[in-house]
Amino acid sequence: MIIVMKAHATAAEIGEVLNLIEEQGMRAHISRGEERTIIGVIGDERHLDPQQWTALPGVEEAMRVLRPYKLASRDFQQKNTIIDVNGVKIGGDAVVVMAGPCSVESREQILETAHAVKAAGATVLRGGAFKPRTSPYSFQGLGEEGLKYLAEAREETGLPIITEVMGVEDLDLVCEYADILQIGARNMQNYPLLKAVGRTNKPVLLKRGLSATIEEWLLAAEYILSEGNYQVMLCERGIRTYEKMTRNTFDLNAIAVLKELTHLPVIADPSHGVGKWQYVTPVARGAVATGADGLIIEVHPDPAHAWSDGGQSLTPENFARLMDDVERITHAIGRRLLRSRDEAAHIAA
Amino acid sequence: MIIVMKAHATAAEIGEVLNLIEEQGMRAHISRGEERTIIGVIGDERHLDPQQWTALPGVEEAMRVLRPYKLASRDFQQKNTIIDVNGVKIGGDAVVVMAGPCSVESREQILETAHAVKAAGATVLRGGAFKPRTSPYSFQGLGEEGLKYLAEAREETGLPIITEVMGVEDLDLVCEYADILQIGARNMQNYPLLKAVGRTNKPVLLKRGLSATIEEWLLAAEYILSEGNYQVMLCERGIRTYEKMTRNTFDLNAIAVLKELTHLPVIADPSHGVGKWQYVTPVARGAVATGADGLIIEVHPDPAHAWSDGGQSLTPENFARLMDDVERITHAIGRRLLRSRDEAAHIAA
Amino acid sequence: MIIVMKAHATAAEIGEVLNLIEEQGMRAHISRGEERTIIGVIGDERHLDPQQWTALPGVEEAMRVLRPYKLASRDFQQKNTIIDVNGVKIGGDAVVVMAGPCSVESREQILETAHAVKAAGATVLRGGAFKPRTSPYSFQGLGEEGLKYLAEAREETGLPIITEVMGVEDLDLVCEYADILQIGARNMQNYPLLKAVGRTNKPVLLKRGLSATIEEWLLAAEYILSEGNYQVMLCERGIRTYEKMTRNTFDLNAIAVLKELTHLPVIADPSHGVGKWQYVTPVARGAVATGADGLIIEVHPDPAHAWSDGGQSLTPENFARLMDDVERITHAIGRRLLRSRDEAAHIAA
Amino acid sequence: MIIVMKAHATAAEIGEVLNLIEEQGMRAHISRGEERTIIGVIGDERHLDPQQWTALPGVEEAMRVLRPYKLASRDFQQKNTIIDVNGVKIGGDAVVVMAGPCSVESREQILETAHAVKAAGATVLRGGAFKPRTSPYSFQGLGEEGLKYLAEAREETGLPIITEVMGVEDLDLVCEYADILQIGARNMQNYPLLKAVGRTNKPVLLKRGLSATIEEWLLAAEYILSEGNYQVMLCERGIRTYEKMTRNTFDLNAIAVLKELTHLPVIADPSHGVGKWQYVTPVARGAVATGADGLIIEVHPDPAHAWSDGGQSLTPENFARLMDDVERITHAIGRRLLRSRDEAAHIAA
Ligand SMILES: C=C(OP(=O)(O)O)C(=O)O
Ligand SMILES: C=C(OP(=O)(O)O)C(=O)O
Ligand SMILES: C=C(OP(=O)(O)O)C(=O)O
Ligand SMILES: C=C(OP(=O)(O)O)C(=O)O
Ligand SMILES: [Mn+2]
Ligand SMILES: [Mn+2]
Ligand SMILES: [Mn+2]
Ligand SMILES: [Mn+2]
Repeated sequence: MIIVMKAHATAAEIGEVLNLIEEQGMRAHISRGEERTIIGVIGDERHLDPQQWTALPGVEEAMRVLRPYKLASRDFQQKNTIIDVNGVKIGGDAVVVMAGPCSVESREQILETAHAVKAAGATVLRGGAFKPRTSPYSFQGLGEEGLKYLAEAREETGLPIITEVMGVEDLDLVCEYADILQIGARNMQNYPLLKAVGRTNKPVLLKRGLSATIEEWLLAAEYILSEGNYQVMLCERGIRTYEKMTRNTFDLNAIAVLKELTHLPVIADPSHGVGKWQYVTPVARGAVATGADGLIIEVHPDPAHAWSDGGQSLTPENFARLMDDVERITHAIGRRLLRSRDEAAHIAA
Repeated sequence: MIIVMKAHATAAEIGEVLNLIEEQGMRAHISRGEERTIIGVIGDERHLDPQQWTALPGVEEAMRVLRPYKLASRDFQQKNTIIDVNGVKIGGDAVVVMAGPCSVESREQILETAHAVKAAGATVLRGGAFKPRTSPYSFQGLGEEGLKYLAEAREETGLPIITEVMGVEDLDLVCEYADILQIGARNMQNYPLLKAVGRTNKPVLLKRGLSATIEEWLLAAEYILSEGNYQVMLCERGIRTYEKMTRNTFDLNAIAVLKELTHLPVIADPSHGVGKWQYVTPVARGAVATGADGLIIEVHPDPAHAWSDGGQSLTPENFARLMDDVERITHAIGRRLLRSRDEAAHIAA
Repeated sequence: MIIVMKAHATAAEIGEVLNLIEEQGMRAHISRGEERTIIGVIGDERHLDPQQWTALPGVEEAMRVLRPYKLASRDFQQKNTIIDVNGVKIGGDAVVVMAGPCSVESREQILETAHAVKAAGATVLRGGAFKPRTSPYSFQGLGEEGLKYLAEAREETGLPIITEVMGVEDLDLVCEYADILQIGARNMQNYPLLKAVGRTNKPVLLKRGLSATIEEWLLAAEYILSEGNYQVMLCERGIRTYEKMTRNTFDLNAIAVLKELTHLPVIADPSHGVGKWQYVTPVARGAVATGADGLIIEVHPDPAHAWSDGGQSLTPENFARLMDDVERITHAIGRRLLRSRDEAAHIAA
Repeated sequence: MIIVMKAHATAAEIGEVLNLIEEQGMRAHISRGEERTIIGVIGDERHLDPQQWTALPGVEEAMRVLRPYKLASRDFQQKNTIIDVNGVKIGGDAVVVMAGPCSVESREQILETAHAVKAAGATVLRGGAFKPRTSPYSFQGLGEEGLKYLAEAREETGLPIITEVMGVEDLDLVCEYADILQIGARNMQNYPLLKAVGRTNKPVLLKRGLSATIEEWLLAAEYILSEGNYQVMLCERGIRTYEKMTRNTFDLNAIAVLKELTHLPVIADPSHGVGKWQYVTPVARGAVATGADGLIIEVHPDPAHAWSDGGQSLTPENFARLMDDVERITHAIGRRLLRSRDEAAHIAA
């Protein structure tokens, strides 16, 4: 940490800062510039709070110099983490696509969609049974019934399933069914939930909070990792900005940044990232071209009748086109697309 | 809801929209303009999702015309809700001040702070025992031990206590001790938690999410209200913007807007809203001058040694000055400040 | 400036940084921590660009430690700058109110409004003759004709006038008429314009850019100051955020921050800051309670027929009420409201 | 436009709205719902201001239903606009790359860079002679001297040049040299400048404002188009958000949205969009994969010694790699990369 003193800070004020540094078990390194005295704090600053120092008179500002996360960092682990979900490897060479409806609505709907996304080549099935809805008057998910339908879809198609868990109290139940636990954007800083999933052995897809910084997001991952669960993927799903022509602003930069800062796989969710179905495929192409290790896409057999997120859901036909588009992009960047083995359609290389 | 068709929408496309409206049990009202056909949807649109309609070909946009919340709205209840917490009335004429440390750190710390804030006139004691910390390496709160110290401070001072509950699994425990349940910014859209506090009979202070819109915030309140708990206060604590010279951007406008839209009491938290102690008092004055019904202020006997949020905590002396400043503002706007009865200090009217 | 090296930066990489520091005529101060080497740059860093250093291999980050502005800073001038506009003193004890229509629309409109705002106590008349409109199809201002009507209104009422200048090419013309030059939000970083007004001897009201940081804003002021014009006021008029229930988000914090960082007067524009007339007065009260030195308020005799910004304009009656409200606030904080001498109405103390 | 009345709006209030609609030469269409009366305004609403209507009592909200721009819209022109700059066609099948330093620093620097970017295949040379710098203490550009060096570089390489014009007063001068006029982000709403470039016959690259909405940006283009200059390209260069790990947030969504809404070519500037050189190439790939018609890239022979934007500038070697990466992406999406004819290096198809 670096502590910048005010222009006219007194020797006594500087002394108080030095005392506090010592109390915290750290060492100080003083540098007197022309206009300011700067104090470097030497030691592991991760448990320090920069804000605290500004409580002392004479302190103008305190700034971290180390990244506050550790286990999530590439300094800690150079090699990419590869997560194996029933044989589907996420974070390696091949780009993985998860697809399915926003919500599980019925047995028929999820089975039909599961077959459709598999036919197009998806290797993981998505579907929410517990839904975080902005309004209490909106459909809240089928709960355990939805989980059962998902399990049936897995049995029929062989696709592993990803589904959201919204609270510690539902975790055991969701773990009985899910292959990957989805932590929703609204729960990225639900710390009891992060700790609890950190104590399971399930892979976790951690969505970026609605307006989380990349650093906060990595610290949320760190909550899970530091409980012992290393199977964490980060999912960029758009952030909140002033622009309202799209539901969120898909932060492409974050994909490039994360691939540098962390060894964890990075997944892109263009469906929530843009919020209108006609833009999902172009944004998906962009995300993969930049370096995303996978995609999660909302697909619905009849979007206009979807119980949630219909306007951003692809039909199976459009999803099949997305898969072909994305496959060409993976080749252009020297990767490949993982496709379900028994799929029918195929593009010419 | 209003559905705007594309410039060249066909009769068949318009027909599909009309069908879907009918299916949903609503009535349509068509208006053909020079460049666009507009379709009004008549009926209670609160359970409709504007996004869904854009899944239909030929639809350009769909917009709500009704507020999506109901119980929280002034259309539903004209008169201000007044919440009585052990005799402290919140939402009425008198402005109420809650104060105390960010975190309960020890028995001594919370007792000392409780006496100090009471002496300055505060009528509710704050203090967190379960703390939502960005980093897993930061102090996470004393848990039940902290709740016990809070209860002891209440016994000694008579001040009711407000403390945060972070998960459904802790709710019963927290309810045993708390007079007001605080829902933190990071949990504003933790819907299972909102529903659960909605089934208690405890007053709730619902903080605005880190980047929640006013509408999402009122819908979060609606989750609580619609479960039967009408004792909800809304707490503006700053929103996330691009400006980094302050921790958050305190949204003063929101106070004026909420006083028009809702009957629920509005509380301001300038401590988190600005994040630096020297700005807390001026911002507190501004919030009350605009119309806040109360304040929640972080106070610590020794901010430089606080275990969280030291840089934004007032010393007891500075807090006493805030109380005097705020009292003068309340008089200027025809209100008054509720002050603890046995306090020593007093300002001349 | 502080340069943070990467964890595994080599000696050669550190050497290159030291060379570049020397080349720039600065001195280096090295501090080797446990995980990182940190290099302090000693000397006037104001002409350095932190981004530049990250072009060197081995550099992780570079951060300023000094404020990049100088003349605008309280370190440079402790005492508040007081600007005298034809006898109206801005930045002193008394709070000053500027008022008038968004646009000058006609001779009658501006004369009527000028008399009305004077009667309510305003001491400066506002009105735009050159208007920065989002759409080319909106009214663009009367130009010189508008300036003439403003001058006539000044003659009739004695109120000095503030009006916007939008380009270097209009500056001489506007200077012939204006007592205060308004630089609009969209022009806060129009650097040729800032330099040009810096070479006039007219007081300048510099609006905050639509999403300018406080630091960028002070640097924009520095452009004017460094050309020799010291009569600059800063006007907070709301910033752009994700919240759309108000036109902008009025940044109350900025008022508190600026009163600490700079000696320049700080003016609040709640009209643009909130964008709906019914919230203007409460936000104006808040701004003054926090510490604004003045207000600029849009007033129109017939808002529904205004040619711009009607929805946020106060009627003369509502404006008179704002003046009384604000006057009470000024007393509560130990200041006073400057009121036009010959005004009729008055509030009881 | 749609006008939503308040729940308890009176017949007289509705009457006033109808009168105002008639006054404006529009027709009204009333729809009485269960909770609200909604009034549709029929006619060309582009010159109406939604805010104005909220000045009337009883009005809750007014919303546009038409896009406020016209000439920029795909409804007005279906076919993509193709701009021919000395034979370089922008907006057609081939993706075009403009490259060069942020600032022209010297004759040698711009000539060296021009040759280098041409060798790598760039077809337009960029370089700023008038620089909009946040601080008055930063390098402000070489002015006309810089333009002369650019012209010399064009003569030597045959590359057309793009350079920024910052004010109406410099426009004639810049037009003497430039092949494409760049309007910088800080000037996107400099309306006198937009009108003036609209009266030239030079192609214009209009950068998105620092926090401009897509709609405001299209309206800024409309200012130029409506003066008669149809050769406008839109350049996404990142928007301002709360995320500070990157300089700006590159808005990938905007590329997909613009390709739908407008016929104008869309250019991506990943250099300013991300602000750190190591992320420029991945973001460039993403932008092209999504649908950008071109790129503008900062390249410097010695980034650590650049006079501006060194940290985000590519070396010529890295730029050559970007070109190869991007070429492969263009093939994957069925387009091609326009490359300078006499370039040496080439990738295998
Ligand atoms: C709710 C979802 O996503 P998010 O949490 O990103 O909003 C979802 O995946 O359906
Ligand atoms: C954590 C707190 O607040 P918030 O939830 O507003 O961040 C708090 O009150 O200490
Ligand atoms: C256009 C105006 O303001 P701003 O520049 O703050 O938008 C105005 O004062 O009318
Ligand atoms: C200043 C530049 O860009 P922008 O206007 O996008 O900031 C530039 O291109 O160097
Ligand atoms: Mn969804
Ligand atoms: Mn706190
Ligand atoms: Mn205005
Ligand atoms: Mn640049």
